[in-house]
Amino acid sequence: MRIITAIKEMQSYVKHNYRRGRKIALVPTMGYFHDGHVMLIREARKLCDRLVVSIFVNPLQFGRGEDFATYPRDMKRDLDLAKEEGTNVVFAPTADEFYPPGYSTFVDEEKISKKLCGGFRPGHFKGVTTVVAKLFNIIRPHTAVFGQKDAQQVAIIKKMVRELSYPIHIIVIQTIREKNGLACSSRNEYLTVHERKDAALLYASLQKAQDMVKAGVRDAGKIAESIRAHLASSPVIKPEYVELVNPNTLERVSQIGERTLIALAAHVGMTRLIDNIFVEP
Amino acid sequence: MRIITAIKEMQSYVKHNYRRGRKIALVPTMGYFHDGHVMLIREARKLCDRLVVSIFVNPLQFGRGEDFATYPRDMKRDLDLAKEEGTNVVFAPTADEFYPPGYSTFVDEEKISKKLCGGFRPGHFKGVTTVVAKLFNIIRPHTAVFGQKDAQQVAIIKKMVRELSYPIHIIVIQTIREKNGLACSSRNEYLTVHERKDAALLYASLQKAQDMVKAGVRDAGKIAESIRAHLASSPVIKPEYVELVNPNTLERVSQIGERTLIALAAHVGMTRLIDNIFVEP
Repeated sequence: MRIITAIKEMQSYVKHNYRRGRKIALVPTMGYFHDGHVMLIREARKLCDRLVVSIFVNPLQFGRGEDFATYPRDMKRDLDLAKEEGTNVVFAPTADEFYPPGYSTFVDEEKISKKLCGGFRPGHFKGVTTVVAKLFNIIRPHTAVFGQKDAQQVAIIKKMVRELSYPIHIIVIQTIREKNGLACSSRNEYLTVHERKDAALLYASLQKAQDMVKAGVRDAGKIAESIRAHLASSPVIKPEYVELVNPNTLERVSQIGERTLIALAAHVGMTRLIDNIFVEP
Repeated sequence: MRIITAIKEMQSYVKHNYRRGRKIALVPTMGYFHDGHVMLIREARKLCDRLVVSIFVNPLQFGRGEDFATYPRDMKRDLDLAKEEGTNVVFAPTADEFYPPGYSTFVDEEKISKKLCGGFRPGHFKGVTTVVAKLFNIIRPHTAVFGQKDAQQVAIIKKMVRELSYPIHIIVIQTIREKNGLACSSRNEYLTVHERKDAALLYASLQKAQDMVKAGVRDAGKIAESIRAHLASSPVIKPEYVELVNPNTLERVSQIGERTLIALAAHVGMTRLIDNIFVEP
């Protein structure tokens, strides 16, 4: 497995493999791998001749007062895992290599990025679309694999790929969960034992909402209310939003008429977590 | 010569040629070809196996009250010229094909795009970087050719390519001029016979500035003043800006210490024209 930190070297590797007609897959990550990352890497491995995993804690997608400085990192363990899963290249540029001084070019999706998390993390998705577009330009993958846990990110990346006409197939892998149902996230690392136990309520509340839909409830307000009530049973959980939306436009729905995304964000102690589930009438 | 209007068909053409290891060059245009376009096409022809010329009057780069609706168009003549110069594909999408309803993804350079023309045409360069990035994603050229007449556009595109890591070689062709020195532009079409004669003062004033530098003048303010005085000799010319700047950062210089871009924009009657020249101490 090769480790590349320079953009130019990464581009030479890509050019070399393009000349040989090889298919490239990309798994873009911020590192500190959990089971969700491993599933992304395994899926990508099946879809290509050369698998590139990027590890880059992207400063652009963190706001002031967010956890850029403390975001968990463990490059040695990540490299071991990537190698074990058959990765050909880990691309791990420094922030200065990726965004040199004076950097001023950005990619921005201006509609759906304002909804859900976008309302609470201004600039976050502009950072995401910029880093992903630049990775796409450097690595020119045929396929890129993302996790459904970041539902809004998935919707935005798909829109960006479609609207900027990137010739890239976007694959989305279902959310991988810990035993108690908590969605795998590098940020789970921040939770105390007690918080981690209560954090299971996030998914439990979404499952209960799914059951309500199965039982015939269609009123989005009623379903959101049930989720909020469920979360209120823990004193350490402070919901940021609970919304029922169209999975592509992220527009709120008032009735479950078709496939609907229920997405939530909540602070569990000091840690901000997100989760989501799909429901269908 | 093939004429392609659908993005998907253009992408298939590119994929087919990539598989065969062919080098692609792109000349992005808004059509209504003049001698400047012909020179861009000729230069690009030398640098590739497959030459794509795009013709697309990009609505995004026109502001309110600007000339999108009246911008001159002559597709038949453009196609004849493109064919004559050995173009393989003219890519001419409709606005709806390029920006479908609900379109919301943009590429924006946020520093140098605010200077010079950027101050008078808000949003213009965001439209330029978005259309060019999308054309780059669709056509994936190895080389793209632009004209020096649009000096700020050149600086912004080069910065975008560098910062978003497009693996594309940007070639810049010197400004082609009419007999009286007026820079070729599709907008010259708007000029009356009288205006066209006076418009020659734009380049004459820049040449005089160049002579001043050759004669040892280094004071940027004095040089700009001379250009303004020169332009004031025509009652139909209203200068918008006259600036001496660093060619890459577009920051103003007060003294000619190194290679400097003198750029100007002026209304000649109802028509807004731009021109520029390089000077060196």
